[in-house]
Amino acid sequence: MPANWQLEAARPEQREEILTVARSAVLFSAEEVATVEELIDEYIARGPQASGYYFLSGVIDGRVAGFACYGPRALTSGTYDLFWMAVDQSMQGRGLGKALSARTLEEVRALGGRLLVAETSGKADYEPTRKFYEADGWTREAIIADFYAPGDAMAIYIKRL
Amino acid sequence: MPANWQLEAARPEQREEILTVARSAVLFSAEEVATVEELIDEYIARGPQASGYYFLSGVIDGRVAGFACYGPRALTSGTYDLFWMAVDQSMQGRGLGKALSARTLEEVRALGGRLLVAETSGKADYEPTRKFYEADGWTREAIIADFYAPGDAMAIYIKRL
Repeated sequence: MPANWQLEAARPEQREEILTVARSAVLFSAEEVATVEELIDEYIARGPQASGYYFLSGVIDGRVAGFACYGPRALTSGTYDLFWMAVDQSMQGRGLGKALSARTLEEVRALGGRLLVAETSGKADYEPTRKFYEADGWTREAIIADFYAPGDAMAIYIKRL
Repeated sequence: MPANWQLEAARPEQREEILTVARSAVLFSAEEVATVEELIDEYIARGPQASGYYFLSGVIDGRVAGFACYGPRALTSGTYDLFWMAVDQSMQGRGLGKALSARTLEEVRALGGRLLVAETSGKADYEPTRKFYEADGWTREAIIADFYAPGDAMAIYIKRL
């Protein structure tokens, strides 16, 4: 990892920078950005264990350039969801997504996790996202047509730890 | 449907009878029963629209003999989860599960739903549950090994409306 990069548990003062990254992600709808905001507020107010939401910041030159949000899936033993992952558009293509994914896996393993799940859209404009997961060693377990909306399938990727 | 059967939106005074059915379901863990309790308390306190949890009671001779709980999946347009469905052991084999499933579909359609999702266990003792879904016209979209716990897969069934 380059010397000017830092991956760390998100700090409360990074809230705005994280939301800026989420807003800059052209694929995130307003509703999705609002969900990220809800989760980070829970994370800041109650902490990761009580809220069930963990945030990782990917910092480049002192600024948040990407983030990941993950947490345990209810009613499972050792399965975690990667709820959100995003990299600022101007910082894409440098491997920050891969670094965030790898660190998330490490953290989930440290929490006793066995399985990480990422659900994403089957739409054409999400093809780079799906290619990212495939290149990053995730296994596609299902595609459910018209899941998010008519014409918008859900693809389920998993990684076993 | 037999004349002594009634399917209806659950009433607050049925709370205990619904939880008795959940507790009598040998396949429900204590944690799962506690989740049903949380959801029904939300349903009673805030109503189905605000809570996102709808409960249907299946009443035989004036007593709750089974129930279904469903609600919209966040961040989708028209996809609903069938969170829980259970029939009292002494009332099984009479078609009440099928009737609850059919009524849930009708209600979801009336709410504008297009797709209903039921996630269930891949364990051997859930084979009757999986056979029920298959006989009831659901499509199995995925089985993810070791999802709920080591040796306990998740099977995803869907029904399109």
